[in-house]
Amino acid sequence: MFAVDPVSRKFDEQIALTINQKTKPLGALGKLEPLAAQIARVQLSKDSECKKLEITQPGMLVFAGDHGIAKFGVSIAPIDVTRQMVQNFVAGGAAINVFSKQMGFNLEVIDCGIAKPLDNYRGVTQHRLGEGTNAIHQAPAMSIDQVRHGFGYAEEVVERHHLSGSNLIALGEMGIGNTSAATAMMAALLELDVSRCVGRGTGIDDKTFERKSALINEALKLHRSKLVSPIHILAHLGGFEIVQMTGAIMAAADRKMMVIIDGFIATAAAIAAVKLHPDARDYLIFAHKSNEQGHRIMLEHLKAEPLLDLDMRLGEGTGAALALPLVQAAINFYNDMASFAAAGVEDVV
Amino acid sequence: MFAVDPVSRKFDEQIALTINQKTKPLGALGKLEPLAAQIARVQLSKDSECKKLEITQPGMLVFAGDHGIAKFGVSIAPIDVTRQMVQNFVAGGAAINVFSKQMGFNLEVIDCGIAKPLDNYRGVTQHRLGEGTNAIHQAPAMSIDQVRHGFGYAEEVVERHHLSGSNLIALGEMGIGNTSAATAMMAALLELDVSRCVGRGTGIDDKTFERKSALINEALKLHRSKLVSPIHILAHLGGFEIVQMTGAIMAAADRKMMVIIDGFIATAAAIAAVKLHPDARDYLIFAHKSNEQGHRIMLEHLKAEPLLDLDMRLGEGTGAALALPLVQAAINFYNDMASFAAAGVEDVV
Repeated sequence: MFAVDPVSRKFDEQIALTINQKTKPLGALGKLEPLAAQIARVQLSKDSECKKLEITQPGMLVFAGDHGIAKFGVSIAPIDVTRQMVQNFVAGGAAINVFSKQMGFNLEVIDCGIAKPLDNYRGVTQHRLGEGTNAIHQAPAMSIDQVRHGFGYAEEVVERHHLSGSNLIALGEMGIGNTSAATAMMAALLELDVSRCVGRGTGIDDKTFERKSALINEALKLHRSKLVSPIHILAHLGGFEIVQMTGAIMAAADRKMMVIIDGFIATAAAIAAVKLHPDARDYLIFAHKSNEQGHRIMLEHLKAEPLLDLDMRLGEGTGAALALPLVQAAINFYNDMASFAAAGVEDVV
Repeated sequence: MFAVDPVSRKFDEQIALTINQKTKPLGALGKLEPLAAQIARVQLSKDSECKKLEITQPGMLVFAGDHGIAKFGVSIAPIDVTRQMVQNFVAGGAAINVFSKQMGFNLEVIDCGIAKPLDNYRGVTQHRLGEGTNAIHQAPAMSIDQVRHGFGYAEEVVERHHLSGSNLIALGEMGIGNTSAATAMMAALLELDVSRCVGRGTGIDDKTFERKSALINEALKLHRSKLVSPIHILAHLGGFEIVQMTGAIMAAADRKMMVIIDGFIATAAAIAAVKLHPDARDYLIFAHKSNEQGHRIMLEHLKAEPLLDLDMRLGEGTGAALALPLVQAAINFYNDMASFAAAGVEDVV
């Protein structure tokens, strides 16, 4: 259902020349330089006459969903907190509200299937795939049909932002228990032992950590024979919000939009999306190194170096929001810095 | 000449309560939490009724100066590049222009003593202490009088920003050869062997690196008996821009303004300022981890964890500029996030 094109490499020399002739030592802007080159590749692939890079109407999409496994004590918070936090998003009081406003994101909150529907959907997109997933150590999280349905929902959201003039989305999430789902997905997608993938979520203790590991191992064992494709892995181990994030990544790449990936959960969705459409990788910007030990491994797999490392473990898209000024800085230096020749500065390197 | 007060700790409990009652797991905003607490301490010390933290009229002060040692091949660029880059700052084409504009800084460029004066001082503050310092391996960089004169100049600049309503400055610099001066200062201030302090500046090769190390060792040997105080270390080993940065830090702390410290050079100035006025440390925010090996050691000495690590090695204040949105984010979450009680979210930790 998605058609993701690779970015063109035919502008690479022109892009490198533009960056290297800026009035600075070669490579002195560090990670901002490959970031500018990546965005230039995407935007020149779209419009080979493109003279200035730009971000227009950045969208922050926060996907919320509940997880059956959350009822089995894998998290610091009870399952009700997902719904309470969605209401907090609507009221404007959460960290992602504050950071989205500061950075100029158009924030959209999507109910992908929290356990108990809201009383009122004003300010929330109703894209529910169910009332929370099944507990993955007991049954498949959802059906293949639900996965496809979720991809369709995600495409609707991304298409709406695209039509409003957006060329960049950032992905956030809320879902008590969703590090368990993402961890199980990671283990299956990368064929790794759970012990290398599992972490402490938003801060669980040793006992909870052991239970979480055990349940994820049970889930993988239960569904082992069914995990034959990324779609099957999403259906058996994923979450409603993770499925829609995966769909959003592919839909955005399909439209040559950049995607800022937040932390652990969004990166698991990115792995699934890149397994389905390898060229989607070209559109992904990684925002924040999570404290989750598995995150490092996923990032290595994706050859990704996140821009920020602020010891945050909140989710919601907060890391992605905070990375936007760095993305804008990469664009601005590319567009607006003088070249050695124009500035009359000796090019010594 | 400066009177730096320690921040009051009597609001610490109130500040911690404010942060911990926000709708997020305890500590989940990572480095932004101690940063918000630090700013709250400063702003509550100034005005105990202060209800909202704020940054007003942030100033980016870029101090330029030349170094006699630059004529002895310690850098990738010839000494003329300092002047050329100052002209680039005036024309608006450098990285610091682009980033200052993006982040909303009032940029001020100060000629602290480049080798050859500009033809025209429109857009540049003329605070020259000489025509470049003496080569530190041959003579003291400058006199004690020049250091004091430099502190006075710096206070003038900071006072002007303060009177215009600024409560935060960021420090940048330009000066071919200034990592050599900063390295020598670091070795003297922290009583460390040069081999632990010296690095590759903006990217020198092995031969240049060896020469740089040898000349810094010579300088330290030559002045050993004179390095009896931070002021003497600044005079014998420093630079005109480093002296004025040191003064700016003390002047800002004196006025209870926050100071964003950029990379290696600014951190050496910060060490000197904190040796002179230990309470100045409370006002310092560290922006960027430099590639210079000595930077890590200086940061440890100051118990500082920079916000960013983008592999940059440009100077000019670029790291400090890029950190401002994170400082603003710390303030915004502190001011604007809902508490658990207000949002009706269960406080589970």
